Amino acid sequence: MAVLGTAAVEALIPVAALIGIAFAVLQWYVVARVPVPSHAGDGGAAGGKGGERGSEDDEEDSVDYRGVEARCAEIQRAISIGATSFLLTEYKYLAVFTAAFAGVIFLFLGSVRRFSARPEPCAYDPARECRPAVANAAFSAVAFLLGALTSVLSGYLGMRVATFANARTALEARRGVGHAFAVAFRSGAAMGFLLASSALLVLYATVNLFGLYYGDDWRGLYESITGYGLGGSSVALFSRVGGGIYTKAADVGADLVGKVERNIPEDDPRNPAVIADNVGDNVGDIAGMGSDLFGSYAESSCAALFVASISSFGTEHNFAAMMYPLLISAVGIVVCAVTTLIATDVAQVKGIDEVGPALKRQILISTVLMTGGIAVVTILALPARFTLFDFGNKKLVKNWHLFICVSAGLWAGLVIGYVTEYFTSNAYSPVQAVARSCRTGAATNVIFGLAVGYKSVIVPILAIAAAIYAGFRLAAMYGIALAALGMLSTIATGLAIDAYGPISDNAGGIAEMAGMPRQVRERTDALDAAGNTTAAIGKGFAIGSAALVSLALFGAYVSRAGITTVDVLSPRVFVGLLVGGMLPYWFSAMTMRSVGSAALRMVEEVRRQFDTIPGLAEGRVAPDYATCVRISTDASLKKMMAPGALVMLSPLVTGTLFGVETLAGLLAGALVSGVQVAISASNSGGAWDNAKKYIEAGASEEARSLGPKGSEAHKAAVIGDTIGDPLKDTSGPSLNILIKLMAVESLVFAPFFAAHGGLIFNHL
Amino acid sequence: MAVLGTAAVEALIPVAALIGIAFAVLQWYVVARVPVPSHAGDGGAAGGKGGERGSEDDEEDSVDYRGVEARCAEIQRAISIGATSFLLTEYKYLAVFTAAFAGVIFLFLGSVRRFSARPEPCAYDPARECRPAVANAAFSAVAFLLGALTSVLSGYLGMRVATFANARTALEARRGVGHAFAVAFRSGAAMGFLLASSALLVLYATVNLFGLYYGDDWRGLYESITGYGLGGSSVALFSRVGGGIYTKAADVGADLVGKVERNIPEDDPRNPAVIADNVGDNVGDIAGMGSDLFGSYAESSCAALFVASISSFGTEHNFAAMMYPLLISAVGIVVCAVTTLIATDVAQVKGIDEVGPALKRQILISTVLMTGGIAVVTILALPARFTLFDFGNKKLVKNWHLFICVSAGLWAGLVIGYVTEYFTSNAYSPVQAVARSCRTGAATNVIFGLAVGYKSVIVPILAIAAAIYAGFRLAAMYGIALAALGMLSTIATGLAIDAYGPISDNAGGIAEMAGMPRQVRERTDALDAAGNTTAAIGKGFAIGSAALVSLALFGAYVSRAGITTVDVLSPRVFVGLLVGGMLPYWFSAMTMRSVGSAALRMVEEVRRQFDTIPGLAEGRVAPDYATCVRISTDASLKKMMAPGALVMLSPLVTGTLFGVETLAGLLAGALVSGVQVAISASNSGGAWDNAKKYIEAGASEEARSLGPKGSEAHKAAVIGDTIGDPLKDTSGPSLNILIKLMAVESLVFAPFFAAHGGLIFNHL
Repeated sequence: MAVLGTAAVEALIPVAALIGIAFAVLQWYVVARVPVPSHAGDGGAAGGKGGERGSEDDEEDSVDYRGVEARCAEIQRAISIGATSFLLTEYKYLAVFTAAFAGVIFLFLGSVRRFSARPEPCAYDPARECRPAVANAAFSAVAFLLGALTSVLSGYLGMRVATFANARTALEARRGVGHAFAVAFRSGAAMGFLLASSALLVLYATVNLFGLYYGDDWRGLYESITGYGLGGSSVALFSRVGGGIYTKAADVGADLVGKVERNIPEDDPRNPAVIADNVGDNVGDIAGMGSDLFGSYAESSCAALFVASISSFGTEHNFAAMMYPLLISAVGIVVCAVTTLIATDVAQVKGIDEVGPALKRQILISTVLMTGGIAVVTILALPARFTLFDFGNKKLVKNWHLFICVSAGLWAGLVIGYVTEYFTSNAYSPVQAVARSCRTGAATNVIFGLAVGYKSVIVPILAIAAAIYAGFRLAAMYGIALAALGMLSTIATGLAIDAYGPISDNAGGIAEMAGMPRQVRERTDALDAAGNTTAAIGKGFAIGSAALVSLALFGAYVSRAGITTVDVLSPRVFVGLLVGGMLPYWFSAMTMRSVGSAALRMVEEVRRQFDTIPGLAEGRVAPDYATCVRISTDASLKKMMAPGALVMLSPLVTGTLFGVETLAGLLAGALVSGVQVAISASNSGGAWDNAKKYIEAGASEEARSLGPKGSEAHKAAVIGDTIGDPLKDTSGPSLNILIKLMAVESLVFAPFFAAHGGLIFNHL
Repeated sequence: MAVLGTAAVEALIPVAALIGIAFAVLQWYVVARVPVPSHAGDGGAAGGKGGERGSEDDEEDSVDYRGVEARCAEIQRAISIGATSFLLTEYKYLAVFTAAFAGVIFLFLGSVRRFSARPEPCAYDPARECRPAVANAAFSAVAFLLGALTSVLSGYLGMRVATFANARTALEARRGVGHAFAVAFRSGAAMGFLLASSALLVLYATVNLFGLYYGDDWRGLYESITGYGLGGSSVALFSRVGGGIYTKAADVGADLVGKVERNIPEDDPRNPAVIADNVGDNVGDIAGMGSDLFGSYAESSCAALFVASISSFGTEHNFAAMMYPLLISAVGIVVCAVTTLIATDVAQVKGIDEVGPALKRQILISTVLMTGGIAVVTILALPARFTLFDFGNKKLVKNWHLFICVSAGLWAGLVIGYVTEYFTSNAYSPVQAVARSCRTGAATNVIFGLAVGYKSVIVPILAIAAAIYAGFRLAAMYGIALAALGMLSTIATGLAIDAYGPISDNAGGIAEMAGMPRQVRERTDALDAAGNTTAAIGKGFAIGSAALVSLALFGAYVSRAGITTVDVLSPRVFVGLLVGGMLPYWFSAMTMRSVGSAALRMVEEVRRQFDTIPGLAEGRVAPDYATCVRISTDASLKKMMAPGALVMLSPLVTGTLFGVETLAGLLAGALVSGVQVAISASNSGGAWDNAKKYIEAGASEEARSLGPKGSEAHKAAVIGDTIGDPLKDTSGPSLNILIKLMAVESLVFAPFFAAHGGLIFNHL
């Protein structure tokens, strides 16, 4: 048996989670020390304090000083109110959906044994009695609700942190780029640790609570726990799609009229869509991404736990080994805390040039430290040898095999992160070539940007394939689930550097709207450019982990549905594979079109305001921000239904009508095709965005020859950026939820499909 | 046994092929009756004849009349010389490649039994002796060379026909749209019938010649025949990619400077890239597509023959049943001849509005007639019941099952054709919505166009999936191969309406350059708009049939490599699947970038000429066409190497290093992912092109509000069109060759991989 006892494990996991929460609160506290006047009226007091700052390179007009802080506070409040009200409206819709779908889960799973409450013979020992299917149905539904709730919490708290930090980042940017970076990064860390810790804590509590009922029936216990993953990802889907449509409708609309037609800068307060745009960053990039990564985390944990429950850990009731997946996450939180301290306290960022390398260093440090952490957990928690379930066979595994599986995922994540950076940062040749192609107009810019996105798929896919091969070969589907957890083990750091991007973006917007000097805006722009890259890296992680997670869930589904081979040479499977490969396109068609048509309406509204409100163009009259916010809100709530339904219904319809094998094909097809579409979409978008920033910043001889803002080349770059917006922030990142969610849904409903599925193909 | 005897079959196939060739010659003869002066000098004589024409609505200046015809002849000659010289250069490269690769085939396959010339026990009856592996190697190499040669011939003859017809179409456009249509369509038919017939004839002759050596060893015979398919597709790959880069570099370059910067019309003779652009239509859209469809046809025939050789047809030596795939093609030629006569002699096109419906009707008529033809062949050639090889099992099949398989493919083709038309013709709402989105600029245009392309994938994939399910379920891999042949059975009609497009496009160019009146140009533009849609339909057919063909080849490969299951739950297979799904992106990245960078150079050259040649902009001095032709030629020859190598090497490397199972996964992944990318790329491109044409034509109230040429909306539409160019004419159509070629190459090399493959994975 392993070194760690049950009691030690029972203590370690919650302690690590609590450390993470404490760390998050600490970061928040540090951020909160930057004063923002709480009412527009008391700008004076805050201004007085602020006066002590700004010593570094203050060139501001001191008369305007208090006004700037008050305006910052006002804008922050407007953004915060907009984001909160949107999320609350969205969650109202989600509450209805979640309640209804919990009912569906109960009915479908309960019907497997006709709602009989009679105990069943246990799978691991037919002589003993285990819990009935109807209990499984009920607990799955409850787990689903808990997952949904935690996901909502993750998104909401993230948004609160971000809207709390944005104005503070802008204000600190006056003191220097290092100060602004510290605030944005600490806020991202607060969000990251809060999310990682609460996800772990809730899952852990659920396992223990459900365990009170299930007792020795570990298989039943972890089967119902899979509902947690489904709940998390369902909410993530709607958050990502809804938030993505919201933010990009506003962004595209604002840019098309503001930058291209009116020649006013980004985030200019005269632009009626500017508040909606900044609200969008918080509900899309922050809340949506928070829910998304929480979903990945919850699903990979559930997949690992479920697969482990049918291994020798489960049948021998070795609790320490069973909790190995959660222990990895627990260690991850501690490792990330150390990593964060390095950025915030040891090697602080001083200048603009240090921002990108500092963020890159964070990923590298956390990966190296985590590798050691994994080794320790593996030695402490696992027996030296054990057997795993391998689709009907038993597979003998040694503990260091699992160390390799987790590490393979972790390091594949690093490779994905670095490759993504290469293809989306304007420090390297791909983005520079995209920028150069703007010389001949928007068309060549788009052609080059698409090519960069396509090319950026190669290495990440090879990295994922290597991790899959290692995990699969050494420990079957458990190995894949662990590789996914490995990639997500540094999620707190990943989220910190990811959330840092939209916070900086918002800070830039606030700086512009509050009328801060050009210099401040340049600093926030530099932060934002690095943020575009980290956002792309974050998406790379999200997609890579989603690929691994879905494969692990796929394996769990196959086990639970009682399939032993998924043979491409069977017509049922192949047809599923082909149609599954099509789903990402169908889904993207819907989301792209939704953004496009919402943006059209936004453009018309913005044009209307400029044309009909006298004095708006000159900045004498404030625009009607509320109408633009309403357009984004309406569009996103209305347009998230259809893609959401496509994802939620595809597995249900396929499983019910065409059976478990076709559904297996469908999942594999969606996974294989969706990963590629998602990576290329995200990176094309990132490359266009930074090509534009490259021209705007004019950092090199070549960049200056393409600029300045308003030049033909810059206009072409803006068009590319605008096309990339829905690709990178709506379609792309939603696709990783598509592949995960279809897999986890299939896993949860597997007993139903196995019992009643295949209505049509059984007759053809 | 079947009704048809061996002698009847032996006669029927060559007779049908000869009928097809005669029909092609007849069409060519009719086209040739339109006079074009043979030297620029004797424009007088031709002009005199031409004077009798133009009675319909002649508004031309009679003084300029002879000059127009002479100029037509001159331009035609320039295009023809450019296209011929490019193709001959390209074929020189291909000759080297083909000879070298034939050597590779011989060495790899010969090495399977160490070049031993000892006969081996037959697979169908181990008591008898069959031909040695080294003979197989030699005959495969010869078949490869024959396939390559026929493919070259198909492309070259198509190009000759097209460059013969383009000026004639332009001249006939003076008499009315109906006359012009007749010339363009007849020329397309000449090409279609020539290609379909010679492909059938050469394949048939090869089977008979090889049969002299192989005798009763049908399995060995049809194994070596698969080299024919590989040869056809290898040449097609380089033709498509090379031609695609050539044409789009010129097209994009010409449009970007001409239309966007200089505001001169399409095909204006002052544009230095205009000859290169028109040459490109002939080497890319005509020669490339001819080779491509020939490849599909050759491969599906080879796949069907190979699969049949290991069925009861093969072991019982039932020649009529064995030749069933070729008989279908033979009947197809006759059916298409009847269909063509309906368009050219029964229901002639009178006005612009009739062009689109007439072409659509052609597809419908040929499909309906062919369904009857299939029924007849099925009854005559096949025994009522027989057994097929189904991955280790024997499967009992009835003859009407095969009727359903072939028809499923045929009708799936019709569905694909009609859906493609819906999404790419400006008569329907999708393209109109794309045009409308130009109101807010190029960015929304691109977003909407991408969404249309994505959406257009749904129904074709469902149609292909249905055909696959039917074929697979009823007759295993033989059913799939037959479905592919069914879709291609009307290839002569398909090619006729497909080739019609670039011929009309060229005619428009010649009309513009020769200074024909606006009215003539309007007619050719209307033909060209319908041609964009038929080109998209043709690509839809090419992709749909490629999907079926690759699957059939995949099945044949699996049989030949001795694999019995391709289980997604095996790490080797899954890794292959994932990486295979990535290959279309890698390939597209290369081709898009090639077009982009060649276009950049073209733009710079065109700008340079406008800036440095005095009098060029005013039309007083002719531009330097030759330099632009050279830029396209150099770019295409240099840039076709890398994507070509990627496709040719991927199966070889994967099979050798990772083994037959990973290669099976790779093929399935490339198929599932590539089909989607190809369809969406082709249709996005088609939609953008016709959205632009919709605005230019101003056919509706809305279209006029967006136009005229040169308006902001029109400029946005041109940008979309330019982005679509490489998608629809380079990347998209090359992808279907990628998936076919990798499959047929794997099939040919299967014995080698089975014997020596898997160097790396055998140790991991």
